[in-house]
Amino acid sequence: MAEVYTHMTMSLDGYIADPEDGTGELFGWYGAGDVTVPSADERWSFQVDANSAAMLRETLSGAGALVCGRRLFDLTDGWDDSHPIGAPVVVVTHNAPQDAAKRPRTTFVGGVAEGIARAKEIAGEKDVSIASADIARQALDMGLVDEVCISLVPVLLGEGIPYFTDLTGAPHRFDDPVVIQGERVTHLRYRVRR
Amino acid sequence: MAEVYTHMTMSLDGYIADPEDGTGELFGWYGAGDVTVPSADERWSFQVDANSAAMLRETLSGAGALVCGRRLFDLTDGWDDSHPIGAPVVVVTHNAPQDAAKRPRTTFVGGVAEGIARAKEIAGEKDVSIASADIARQALDMGLVDEVCISLVPVLLGEGIPYFTDLTGAPHRFDDPVVIQGERVTHLRYRVRR
Repeated sequence: MAEVYTHMTMSLDGYIADPEDGTGELFGWYGAGDVTVPSADERWSFQVDANSAAMLRETLSGAGALVCGRRLFDLTDGWDDSHPIGAPVVVVTHNAPQDAAKRPRTTFVGGVAEGIARAKEIAGEKDVSIASADIARQALDMGLVDEVCISLVPVLLGEGIPYFTDLTGAPHRFDDPVVIQGERVTHLRYRVRR
Repeated sequence: MAEVYTHMTMSLDGYIADPEDGTGELFGWYGAGDVTVPSADERWSFQVDANSAAMLRETLSGAGALVCGRRLFDLTDGWDDSHPIGAPVVVVTHNAPQDAAKRPRTTFVGGVAEGIARAKEIAGEKDVSIASADIARQALDMGLVDEVCISLVPVLLGEGIPYFTDLTGAPHRFDDPVVIQGERVTHLRYRVRR
């Protein structure tokens, strides 16, 4: 059965990027080990510790579709229609880009609930990953998220773009997490309590 | 050798209390198990899981002095001069209370650096615990903290009083943590990188 989860790398003070979208202080763990994990796009691979490698391989093999917002889509130029996670992408936006037809593995939909429903159809038996914090927050408030995954990095940024903000349905409660300690990161996987 | 550490129970979105200083959603772990850990004040004890019990016993036996701000002192009425951690308290405040003389185990000092220095003298070979978030933040920015401890609770509060805010010296970087998983809490202990 497909699970809907959100996964972000976060600082101890809750930021997923610095104020200029920089992730240098946060993404060190993707290169902090000596195990190579290939992504679905041959141009990219990860070089992580063994524990993080196991987690990444599970994520990569389980992903059936990815949901993101228009901001992340624009920042990454839609990953050239080839997201490293190896799954089709569903973009929540009110304005599909003009070159949408040239992106056969990307779907554009108008709302969060519709985006997740579409992603579940695409994913089938596999999981749906939410890759944008603003979509994750809205989906959480709508009760559409099964798991919240946080790769917690041992740094305080002081300022930046928060993972969780503007929640309208809080408090949101979770089960105790599955914890995987890696190099320069603590992976925490929380199941949402209904 | 005395260590200076700060320890708070924190939500996944970084809050140590709700906007009204309530800790109901956060402090559940202090009563979530079947192991009784007596505090230094016989009126109080903790009822926690075995892992949290070991952590709490170590904290209680290691504490040589506690530093807090005037706000927490007022909220708790100075713990009746008998903090559950069993150590003398140093309060950072510009105005000592009128009944200061009736509180033989409480010291009042005017600044954060002075407060920590005084606490280290009192603690001797034991540790100094910083119990107020605003003092912790200032001490961290001044390079006076050896360890940051977070008891991370599986809840998103959505709003409240943050552990880490208004940092002036960020980014602050830490070693990978010691992780202890308890019932309704993940204890994370980070050593500050110099």
